[in-house]
Amino acid sequence: MYKKLYVLPLFLFLLVSCKNKTEDATTVGNSNPTETIAASSNPLPSWNDGTLKSDIIAYVEKVTKEGTPDFIPVEDRIATFDNDGTLWAEKPYVQELFAFYRVKKMVEANPALEQKQPFKAVVEKDKTFFEKGGDKALIELVAATHTGMTEDEFEKEAKDFFTGAIFPGKNVPLKQIRYQPQLELLNYLRANGFKTFIVTGGTVELVRAISADFYGIPKYQVVGTSFKYTFDDAANSIKREPALDLLDDKVGKPVGIQLHIGQRPVFACGNEGGAGDLAMLRYSSGSKYPSFQMIVNHNDSIREYSYQEKDNLSLNTAAKYKYHVISIKDDWKKVFPDK
Amino acid sequence: MYKKLYVLPLFLFLLVSCKNKTEDATTVGNSNPTETIAASSNPLPSWNDGTLKSDIIAYVEKVTKEGTPDFIPVEDRIATFDNDGTLWAEKPYVQELFAFYRVKKMVEANPALEQKQPFKAVVEKDKTFFEKGGDKALIELVAATHTGMTEDEFEKEAKDFFTGAIFPGKNVPLKQIRYQPQLELLNYLRANGFKTFIVTGGTVELVRAISADFYGIPKYQVVGTSFKYTFDDAANSIKREPALDLLDDKVGKPVGIQLHIGQRPVFACGNEGGAGDLAMLRYSSGSKYPSFQMIVNHNDSIREYSYQEKDNLSLNTAAKYKYHVISIKDDWKKVFPDK
Repeated sequence: MYKKLYVLPLFLFLLVSCKNKTEDATTVGNSNPTETIAASSNPLPSWNDGTLKSDIIAYVEKVTKEGTPDFIPVEDRIATFDNDGTLWAEKPYVQELFAFYRVKKMVEANPALEQKQPFKAVVEKDKTFFEKGGDKALIELVAATHTGMTEDEFEKEAKDFFTGAIFPGKNVPLKQIRYQPQLELLNYLRANGFKTFIVTGGTVELVRAISADFYGIPKYQVVGTSFKYTFDDAANSIKREPALDLLDDKVGKPVGIQLHIGQRPVFACGNEGGAGDLAMLRYSSGSKYPSFQMIVNHNDSIREYSYQEKDNLSLNTAAKYKYHVISIKDDWKKVFPDK
Repeated sequence: MYKKLYVLPLFLFLLVSCKNKTEDATTVGNSNPTETIAASSNPLPSWNDGTLKSDIIAYVEKVTKEGTPDFIPVEDRIATFDNDGTLWAEKPYVQELFAFYRVKKMVEANPALEQKQPFKAVVEKDKTFFEKGGDKALIELVAATHTGMTEDEFEKEAKDFFTGAIFPGKNVPLKQIRYQPQLELLNYLRANGFKTFIVTGGTVELVRAISADFYGIPKYQVVGTSFKYTFDDAANSIKREPALDLLDDKVGKPVGIQLHIGQRPVFACGNEGGAGDLAMLRYSSGSKYPSFQMIVNHNDSIREYSYQEKDNLSLNTAAKYKYHVISIKDDWKKVFPDK
């Protein structure tokens, strides 16, 4: 069940529209979001005043008031956030940009690869190959571009990628596709004793490469999709094998949370679009403490994107279980950070 | 390779000598080790003055001095400690006491189990069953006693166990088998910006049940042996299946570290006895920063225990790679904490 990748439709879209924009080199700044806001009179300035903002603040104030029945001890204030579509934009997935970046570099280093699949299909923007090959072809691509190297090598590759990558369509460095209101929310939660975690469908090391710089979240507070590792004592290095270990999406998210965090989050935030976060929100809602679940609704075609699930599963589930819904259009005063 | 359990010899020893002492009920105190020591003039009072204590302090002072070539940024100050035999006594493993505790409770609840293996063998202290059955029989026991329940149920079981458990031979609550010098070392490292992690061969949730109370280490900073999980949406719970996911021992330790922490530790401490920590120390020694590796030598038959590996692999490897060795007899002024 964990072998199924979930990015095929967007991947195909990207294959046609991306046009290798990742080669532009723009250095990403180093401003640390943890430093920007502590406890101020308006801790969420990029959120419009309204019910949702009030609900968030009321929840945080309620559960941090010692001596009340709703009080949550600081060690149990666990907050989990999905990444793609929840903390930064997901059209396209950054993971796909990285796969393309790797294909380009690998083909440059070894031009013979251009004649081999799945590289050939990427270079030639051959939609049919991936349509026909389905998940198998896609796993082949991710495996070919993300594994077979040591962790140290991967880390360098990821760093180089993030230094230069430009987000297609918006023509900005990847740091500029983070959602400013969510950066404020992360800071606000931390200022109130919450530990903030990323729980991503993306591969864990790619997100770890930027989690501290982009979100103020240390590597060990990132849960994600992982490959199988082996340790080579002679080389003193970890190698990733081309086999998925955990697909941290859908029912894989509570599994990843249990494995890495070991307790239910009391605050969880995901997004509609691929229905990947419902199990995480459901798991959070089972906490013995008062808990808070929230889903980003991508309904702002002007400032961000507008896309909905065909069956509207995420928003229907939110209505059923009374999860909070972020309307980007109405709840966010500002979507992306200033440069 | 991860399916192999490593506790057979001690397990058999325990089967004969333990005598169900876990039934005694003694409430364990709540003193929090994180509160006891910050930065004092003698941060390691239970360590005898000598080369090793000086080396530890010199290392910490060296790598925390900003503006020097040896400086380690705070986010990279990762310290990993094995648990059994490194942070607390391992004769017998607490994990085994827990398995026996579970057998007793399960048989009480369902007396018919007494006639079924592997319960029968435990109840009748049948060494032969486990000798003949080897790893397979042992996995069967761990699976039967540690899985097939929800995480919430397991957490309650672990809590109940730790509240009453008494360590055989020493007749003290489990909190009293922690090593006082190591508690001071954990505090000293944290006071200097290190994040302290437990990397244990034991099952991760059992150690998480006491990591904050016993060691000041949050659940998400515990890496351990894990079973496969499934998420049940209708029941809104995680269940553990009777199949190992990762055996976090030997070469499994660097793998667990990469999966959970995502970076090499700069400080790592294990123990000789089962040669389980060598790969972790080796992985740490490959850090790009100055690093520190240390092995506890159990050579104090009076105050703790005296046991050595037949082939002396851990101490030989320590000599080969110049790891530091803790002689319990000579380096520790005091072994266990005051009551």
